[in-house]
Amino acid sequence: MFSLTIRDHMMIAHSLRGEVFGPAQRLHGATYVVDATFRRATLDADGVVVDIGRATEVLRSVLGELGYRNLDEEEGLAGTNTTTEALARVIADRLAERAGAGELGDGARELDGLVVTLHESHVAWASYERAL
Amino acid sequence: MFSLTIRDHMMIAHSLRGEVFGPAQRLHGATYVVDATFRRATLDADGVVVDIGRATEVLRSVLGELGYRNLDEEEGLAGTNTTTEALARVIADRLAERAGAGELGDGARELDGLVVTLHESHVAWASYERAL
Amino acid sequence: MFSLTIRDHMMIAHSLRGEVFGPAQRLHGATYVVDATFRRATLDADGVVVDIGRATEVLRSVLGELGYRNLDEEEGLAGTNTTTEALARVIADRLAERAGAGELGDGARELDGLVVTLHESHVAWASYERAL
Amino acid sequence: MFSLTIRDHMMIAHSLRGEVFGPAQRLHGATYVVDATFRRATLDADGVVVDIGRATEVLRSVLGELGYRNLDEEEGLAGTNTTTEALARVIADRLAERAGAGELGDGARELDGLVVTLHESHVAWASYERAL
Amino acid sequence: MFSLTIRDHMMIAHSLRGEVFGPAQRLHGATYVVDATFRRATLDADGVVVDIGRATEVLRSVLGELGYRNLDEEEGLAGTNTTTEALARVIADRLAERAGAGELGDGARELDGLVVTLHESHVAWASYERAL
Amino acid sequence: MFSLTIRDHMMIAHSLRGEVFGPAQRLHGATYVVDATFRRATLDADGVVVDIGRATEVLRSVLGELGYRNLDEEEGLAGTNTTTEALARVIADRLAERAGAGELGDGARELDGLVVTLHESHVAWASYERAL
Repeated sequence: MFSLTIRDHMMIAHSLRGEVFGPAQRLHGATYVVDATFRRATLDADGVVVDIGRATEVLRSVLGELGYRNLDEEEGLAGTNTTTEALARVIADRLAERAGAGELGDGARELDGLVVTLHESHVAWASYERAL
Repeated sequence: MFSLTIRDHMMIAHSLRGEVFGPAQRLHGATYVVDATFRRATLDADGVVVDIGRATEVLRSVLGELGYRNLDEEEGLAGTNTTTEALARVIADRLAERAGAGELGDGARELDGLVVTLHESHVAWASYERAL
Repeated sequence: MFSLTIRDHMMIAHSLRGEVFGPAQRLHGATYVVDATFRRATLDADGVVVDIGRATEVLRSVLGELGYRNLDEEEGLAGTNTTTEALARVIADRLAERAGAGELGDGARELDGLVVTLHESHVAWASYERAL
Repeated sequence: MFSLTIRDHMMIAHSLRGEVFGPAQRLHGATYVVDATFRRATLDADGVVVDIGRATEVLRSVLGELGYRNLDEEEGLAGTNTTTEALARVIADRLAERAGAGELGDGARELDGLVVTLHESHVAWASYERAL
Repeated sequence: MFSLTIRDHMMIAHSLRGEVFGPAQRLHGATYVVDATFRRATLDADGVVVDIGRATEVLRSVLGELGYRNLDEEEGLAGTNTTTEALARVIADRLAERAGAGELGDGARELDGLVVTLHESHVAWASYERAL
Repeated sequence: MFSLTIRDHMMIAHSLRGEVFGPAQRLHGATYVVDATFRRATLDADGVVVDIGRATEVLRSVLGELGYRNLDEEEGLAGTNTTTEALARVIADRLAERAGAGELGDGARELDGLVVTLHESHVAWASYERAL
């Protein structure tokens, strides 16, 4: 099994609902350093998992929909507690949708799976892994 | 599948038994930067894998039982060659025991698995992965 | 010249004033991984630059005044554009004040200087350096 | 499941064939920081996944066959587009061959699998995972 | 004193002249992860050391002149042994020239100095520091 | 001013004397990831700060005198509280002595200074800087 990972980041504001979050129930924010991993069993004709240029643009675009925003006021996230875990899934699902729509190229339809990891600090990170 | 990882560290002295270890058969020591990864298929009602506050406290407590000690003289480790691999298992098993005892909260009973990684330097690390 | 550095982090929301900031003029946030470096020409009687336990507590306390907050609404920062550079100075100045008040111990009065670095992502960080 | 990872690096020149590579079709180069992960279900009699000393030497030797070279002119790679993904497989396969030949010691015949990750920059890396 | 650092990278081929370089006398290559640090005593009216957007573009442009190339054949580097140290200076001098030409904005004329660090691997890096 | 930094590591046991050290007064240990930085105003005839091959060997040799040992029992360190800060100086002074003895080559006599940084964990490190 092969995989390719690219890294980018986004900076957002949000608050978390639930006593378990303590002071993080207040409006605060985070830099998420985002690693997107693409997996497939065999390489394409060019010898790659996915076109790294396209993948970088698509990840940039997905993060651009969330970054420099207060996620508490984003319609698409209404009803979502935007924890690091939940955001990893949002980003993975949006990348999967883009892959399905052909934005990663035709070869990307051979991708087997996807992992998105969000690093919220030097001591905590969360991932969501899904099939494609 | 979701995962959450938290990082902490411990500093210990020990010696390793076996010719394969060369100079590491002498009493020496290590800083282990410890990553504990918790896995589950779905998020809990708060939208998290596990309460990160409780997980941090429990990891701190487990590492506190080992840190700032000469592991050659720890009763609980008698007969164990305290290699990085073996210590990863000791820590994972102790975290699993704590999770089973409810120290990570009721929701943590839904956890599927656990990975513990010990970084012994910038060029070597070892992991132990187990189900919960 | 000796130095000791400790690392911690804080997560804040804010917005930046000025066209140069583009989308960062919107309310968003950041994780700042914070490195505080203490400098002195000679070590104290214990052989250290500063008591690392006390320094860790003082840094934690200073970051606790800022973290999990919307800095746009903090009185102490009124009129400050809370750029990474400006926050590095705020933190350094507050650490210097604490050192002056004896919170780092008597020996810390021998400190020559202080550097505070705030990492806002994996590709950008800012520092402020001052004498003590 | 246990794993042990060691890190080393190599510096090579090459060019990539295919329009998808844009400017990387020109002769250029890369530092690959290489992580080799060895996996097995149980530890050997010494309490390790593999003798880290031998593993380090074998990885060094495999990287020595590729490093400080122009891969476009290496016979063993004729017909291979030496992408990061493809090189991860070349290195994994060569490590597997060495393990099979006993260079990692007799105990290494118990290894279950191998992952090789090549970091080509701070924002991109690729892996190849295989059974042993 | 304030500083702002941004990180980018470039991938090049080259060979080094001199017996001291051993196998690196052969044509090979490197990824250089490049940190550019801008220093000034006071912040500008926006509260920054330099417009990070402009600085990122200028660094990208300077690295674009070198990246994905065989430096042995670059006219601008004729007669230069393109060691990590020497390339750090080339990049710093080109950034200084751009700053002088106003590409970093008028405020950037207040910059006091510049440091460029090139990381050639996880175990070696070199810097060049100069006044502006 | 140019600088070149190389990284290596050592693993030691020790105990620290003084109430300020709390549990670190017990016999424990540490991995120190060691960065040695060599500085000079101009490059040598080969275009480098120092022969990186020789510097790597000399650093390895200096660390070999300390590593895999219980520093409490080392004669050369009698009377030294082997804090991270103090060990940074020991290593810097030994590197300086080797440089003076010609082990880094004749050109190394042009070195202006030296910085040694010891990383004791992901959240703490100490440095000692001296002239040559």
